[in-house]
Amino acid sequence: MAQPNHDPITATADAGDVLGAYLRAQATAFLRGLRLHEESGADAAEGNDAARSLRGAARRISGSLATFRVVTESSWADGLRTELVWLSSTLADEHAYAARLTRLMDALHRLSGSPELPAPRGSAGSAGAAGALTVGSARAGALLERQLTLARTRAHSATLQALGSSRFHAVADAVAVLASEVPLDSVAARGRVTDVLVPLATVAETRLSAAVSALPPVDAAHPYNADHDGPWHEVRRLLRVHRYAREALGEDVSRPAAAGEALDRHRDAAEAATASAAAARTPRIAPATAYALGVLHADQRHEVEAARLDFHHIWLPEPAVTPR
Amino acid sequence: MAQPNHDPITATADAGDVLGAYLRAQATAFLRGLRLHEESGADAAEGNDAARSLRGAARRISGSLATFRVVTESSWADGLRTELVWLSSTLADEHAYAARLTRLMDALHRLSGSPELPAPRGSAGSAGAAGALTVGSARAGALLERQLTLARTRAHSATLQALGSSRFHAVADAVAVLASEVPLDSVAARGRVTDVLVPLATVAETRLSAAVSALPPVDAAHPYNADHDGPWHEVRRLLRVHRYAREALGEDVSRPAAAGEALDRHRDAAEAATASAAAARTPRIAPATAYALGVLHADQRHEVEAARLDFHHIWLPEPAVTPR
Repeated sequence: MAQPNHDPITATADAGDVLGAYLRAQATAFLRGLRLHEESGADAAEGNDAARSLRGAARRISGSLATFRVVTESSWADGLRTELVWLSSTLADEHAYAARLTRLMDALHRLSGSPELPAPRGSAGSAGAAGALTVGSARAGALLERQLTLARTRAHSATLQALGSSRFHAVADAVAVLASEVPLDSVAARGRVTDVLVPLATVAETRLSAAVSALPPVDAAHPYNADHDGPWHEVRRLLRVHRYAREALGEDVSRPAAAGEALDRHRDAAEAATASAAAARTPRIAPATAYALGVLHADQRHEVEAARLDFHHIWLPEPAVTPR
Repeated sequence: MAQPNHDPITATADAGDVLGAYLRAQATAFLRGLRLHEESGADAAEGNDAARSLRGAARRISGSLATFRVVTESSWADGLRTELVWLSSTLADEHAYAARLTRLMDALHRLSGSPELPAPRGSAGSAGAAGALTVGSARAGALLERQLTLARTRAHSATLQALGSSRFHAVADAVAVLASEVPLDSVAARGRVTDVLVPLATVAETRLSAAVSALPPVDAAHPYNADHDGPWHEVRRLLRVHRYAREALGEDVSRPAAAGEALDRHRDAAEAATASAAAARTPRIAPATAYALGVLHADQRHEVEAARLDFHHIWLPEPAVTPR
């Protein structure tokens, strides 16, 4: 994981020095993650950790290049940023499918405590032992496992292909250069932190605030409606950009990090609900399987709603709605 | 609807006078409801109103006879109470099936705003017009309508049969006697309200408080588990007994009435969830139908959970859990 920089930064320091130090540190973290990933071989846990730190560093570099674009050589920054966004989204897929399967299986186990999930007809359906998967839940779990494992395997292949591509090697080379020398705009980089970086970070924050204000109201009456997910995903993206900008300035980012975790849960639950709905459209599944997938879908949409309330409680001075 | 008595009652009044006045008023309300029910004929709305006021009066009489048993001729009170409990539960069934169907159809319409409820394969399934029932929801609605209409028709027949029975006529005769003269215990009835009725009402309240304290914690992690519904239904029953006792004493009962409404919603949602789960066990239903019933089940279990939180907010000084 890339370490946030908590050292106090002097407001009168040169903007280029501060941004350069942050970008060099993240570039070093990127290269270390890459080396660990190559060395991890068959160790899945080590490989996951390495991929996570690689993604984190890539996001921090691309986020900082977006926020502080004018302090760098802009055309170089735009090119590298595009490539880093491609890389981190490619790397994210495999992890996302694995995490989605874990989330859905955990939810199914939790839900299967219910005596009302369908059991075989004629059996003591309303008295199943708590924790034992009912037939419908077990079949739904097997179906989701099959579908998401297939998707993860495909994503794994795509990751391997990406990491072997000349496109990736060009990104790695560019980051290796960045680790020793950051291409800066000679004029802007000589300005003071407080005159150059702080106003740019404020722009990122203003963009975030506007997106938060424009969020549709948290509507407990329509938890199953995924139409409103998009603006929330956009807030999640802008919150990350804001957080990395504050991190580059050496500020405490525990609040945006906590709010970001709520929005990560929001995204994960929304995609898990979609996966459950997609699985229910599989032809020729048993009604009990479809029923369990319906319960699972509704459960994950309620998790979406809970994550929205969590975000409001963390991020806004007043809760947006009074929970009933 | 039986009118609660809000006239101030003197603490030094005779217990028998106060209880007698309340019981006579409720007996009169019962007889009026019965007459309206007989006159309503084919007018369903009038018949429903009459049945509701009949049930309310029956519950108030049987509740008061339970709480203030020792102030009345106890063996008479026990007999009448048993018969009134039978009558009001018989009358309640038809209304309950109708209300359950309305609740489930409303929920299906609300849920069908979701673009992720299954639509016919190959159609623009993820872009259905909001409010239009998807195929699965429509089929689930038709199935529930068939099952609950059948149950309601059976309950209607049972009501007609009960109202024509000699058992019912005996109850009606007993209530007619009660409307003019309440059989009281000659000693207890001469005591003062504050010495006799108030302590008995306090016993009912203590019984309620104990049941509330013994409620399982509101566990947002297991909303689908109906194992804990029983103690909540018992609290609902005890809350009614408490409310009618306070009403007999001429006290303001708006808080127990509001808390009782939350527990009514709790009971209705729990039974609607059970009805949805039962419908999903119908043989040979389509997977899309089962899926919609699963979503509906989870939705109603979340309504159960929301009703529990509502009750806590109304009834307890501190919320039992912090909503997330």
